[in-house]
Amino acid sequence: MGKMDKIFNELEQIVGNRVRMNASDLCCYSADASQIRGMPDFVLFPISVEEVSEIMKIANKYNINVTARGAGTGLAGGAVPVKGGIVLDMTKMDKILKIDIENLLVVVEPGVVQVDLNEALKPYGFFFPPDPGSFATCTVGGQIANNASGMRCVKYGTVKNYVLNLEVIMADGTLMNTGSECQKTSSGYDLSRLFVGSEGTLGIITKATLKIMPIPECRKLVMVSFPSSEIAGKSVSTVFSAGVMPSACEILDKTSVDVLLKLDPNVILPKDGDVIIFEVDGSKEAVDSAADKLKETLTPFASSILVTDDPDEMKKIWAARSLVGAAVSKLDPTKTRIYVGEDLGVPIKKLPEMIKKVYEVTDKEGLLPMIYGHIGDGTIHVGQFIDVLDQNDWDKLNRAADALHLAAIEIGGTVSSEHGIGAARGKYLKTQCGNSFNAMKSIKNALDPKGILNPGKLGFD
Amino acid sequence: MGKMDKIFNELEQIVGNRVRMNASDLCCYSADASQIRGMPDFVLFPISVEEVSEIMKIANKYNINVTARGAGTGLAGGAVPVKGGIVLDMTKMDKILKIDIENLLVVVEPGVVQVDLNEALKPYGFFFPPDPGSFATCTVGGQIANNASGMRCVKYGTVKNYVLNLEVIMADGTLMNTGSECQKTSSGYDLSRLFVGSEGTLGIITKATLKIMPIPECRKLVMVSFPSSEIAGKSVSTVFSAGVMPSACEILDKTSVDVLLKLDPNVILPKDGDVIIFEVDGSKEAVDSAADKLKETLTPFASSILVTDDPDEMKKIWAARSLVGAAVSKLDPTKTRIYVGEDLGVPIKKLPEMIKKVYEVTDKEGLLPMIYGHIGDGTIHVGQFIDVLDQNDWDKLNRAADALHLAAIEIGGTVSSEHGIGAARGKYLKTQCGNSFNAMKSIKNALDPKGILNPGKLGFD
Repeated sequence: MGKMDKIFNELEQIVGNRVRMNASDLCCYSADASQIRGMPDFVLFPISVEEVSEIMKIANKYNINVTARGAGTGLAGGAVPVKGGIVLDMTKMDKILKIDIENLLVVVEPGVVQVDLNEALKPYGFFFPPDPGSFATCTVGGQIANNASGMRCVKYGTVKNYVLNLEVIMADGTLMNTGSECQKTSSGYDLSRLFVGSEGTLGIITKATLKIMPIPECRKLVMVSFPSSEIAGKSVSTVFSAGVMPSACEILDKTSVDVLLKLDPNVILPKDGDVIIFEVDGSKEAVDSAADKLKETLTPFASSILVTDDPDEMKKIWAARSLVGAAVSKLDPTKTRIYVGEDLGVPIKKLPEMIKKVYEVTDKEGLLPMIYGHIGDGTIHVGQFIDVLDQNDWDKLNRAADALHLAAIEIGGTVSSEHGIGAARGKYLKTQCGNSFNAMKSIKNALDPKGILNPGKLGFD
Repeated sequence: MGKMDKIFNELEQIVGNRVRMNASDLCCYSADASQIRGMPDFVLFPISVEEVSEIMKIANKYNINVTARGAGTGLAGGAVPVKGGIVLDMTKMDKILKIDIENLLVVVEPGVVQVDLNEALKPYGFFFPPDPGSFATCTVGGQIANNASGMRCVKYGTVKNYVLNLEVIMADGTLMNTGSECQKTSSGYDLSRLFVGSEGTLGIITKATLKIMPIPECRKLVMVSFPSSEIAGKSVSTVFSAGVMPSACEILDKTSVDVLLKLDPNVILPKDGDVIIFEVDGSKEAVDSAADKLKETLTPFASSILVTDDPDEMKKIWAARSLVGAAVSKLDPTKTRIYVGEDLGVPIKKLPEMIKKVYEVTDKEGLLPMIYGHIGDGTIHVGQFIDVLDQNDWDKLNRAADALHLAAIEIGGTVSSEHGIGAARGKYLKTQCGNSFNAMKSIKNALDPKGILNPGKLGFD
């Protein structure tokens, strides 16, 4: 019996028939939503923390790499086993274990889908704020591993601000809890936040205790068009300086608006320039006064301003916004949206500079970018689309992505604002971090000395 | 020339006459506001990051321990050199380097005093929210090292949520930046938050980039008295469940109220039981509606309710609250307040259980505790006072503190909610953390292999 069969048998002892090593199953786990590919040797579907611990003990014994996977919606290859080994499909561990409103928290397994968690919380009037675009399918475990956030994080903060405790299985199979059910603590290193965004390189998350928030009473949208996206970018810091903290602040540049209008001419969007959709939330009175202040602050910059709290109209505007990622392919059916260089983040004041740079870089390559994203926290998503059968297009795209990543670093930004580093952006992380990359590597080596946890990610071997 | 004189000379090469090794100077640096004592060998007053780096290189070469110190207001011995070596007094690095409203941030040196930072931000209408009781004297560096927070953290979160970047000097003298000026990032391990609360055991903070927030337009207080502190504790989770998020939520138990009334009979506090002061902030309209909802929610529990937005009255109420730490000594001039077992944190729902336990434990020892603190995030400060000349009193106090720490752990709490572990609570940290203590130790060893950064803290040797 070969080594792989021996290992298969040992894994089977733990999870019964919830282990696969046939080619077709393995193939399904060789990709996520990025361009990164890597074939696993085994796919396992654990259903308990005990199973995960036993699996890690075997992996540790045989030096097998282990990559945890949620819904596979990642855009940087974080869940792709680029160095082979075991993929742990965590989606069968999908129970909401506790909804505890009085303690302002929930306890969930990592495979719970984000939207299901919020549906379960709705009757109590509470929600888990971090809201990635993939909220309808992504798992909470994946969201934590990537520190994935979304448009309302400008007010509510990212996953980091909501993780009170993680139960994790370490590289050698040991179980530990990184925190507790306390809302606040100053007791030693904050391991919870170290694990958030660590992309499965430090341990496998088997349970999460998450802080929750009351659903705001009301929301109101202030949709503003601007004569240029640089002016749009500039308006954001003006809004903050005026003391308004919007609950969302989304830019759609003129190209994005044109694409959406092409897709559906009835879509509610101004047709006269780059658009920012500001949302404010809170009590009726708070929302009214914030919307008034927004309007007053933005009038000197704006081409047009629409204020609405009509639920139907707001729903339609957000629906249009949420289409943008997919809509791009409608612009030209021969072209496909590719996610590279798509998740830049810069200090708020640098937004106009970064936006200008995006146009410069893509112009040079003859590409037409869509710019959208959570401009309120400095996140710019760049949508680019190419003929995937044309190598020349791929070369242009990759050159542009490279230039964009380096430009973001150059102006004090980050190569990933919310999608993660994965295998796609490892080399840029080193450039971005300088000496702190060595500190990250030391921590990785300390907690995973054999390097079996999701190797090939975050720029680690 | 002895070894110490040789080292002194090398340190003098770096900082000139800003190094001391005479007994009287050393003695001044052998204590903080806790009961922990430890004599340094050298005290240095660096004025630049370059000096700190050179000092660490010498410390690394000669294996000398280094303890950074801000204002010395710590309550757990975090800044006390319990294993000798160098104390770095960081208070000469006290410049506000940048106020950047458009980027929603400030850049400061670690020796900036918290209140000075907020005074400088006031004209812009912004503030740095974390507000420890020692805000008038503590340094921002010390606040970061301890993840020190305060009463408004129930709404605004602790220091962790505000640190965008730290410039730190590592154990070998290397400089690194833990983050950037971006508001959001998903690029590798979150080293900023690892350093927050690490109490100088991983590196020396030489610069901090901090997120700031707009000062709320209005505030309003809802002061409520309850028939018992257990009922008061219970009311807190009821408030949250009702969807109200107060900006402060402070308990004063009956003993605390009595002490304050004894100190000043005209103090504005209800005389009929345990008191919680709720504060709400935001726009005028938001504040009015939140205060109304609070009143409605709390009426079934309350003995009395006072709502006020009169600035003078609010100021007087907060002044009374802020006296509580010191006031205790007025109760009996032969007794002194001692800070041990003073910073317990529990999940919100467990507050009544913890409060009951505090009375049980102190009753058994014949001590009379004052209970106050930031009950909204589960923080209970226990004020105890003894005759410091009576060894029997000390024994009682230490037994009570020991029992309280273990009780907090037992019910899923934390031995320090905001004051830190230091040298005072190291052994409890091990018990509280279980396996995660080993992970902390591995990280410590990885980043400070010789163990020269503030040894004897956080339960490390």
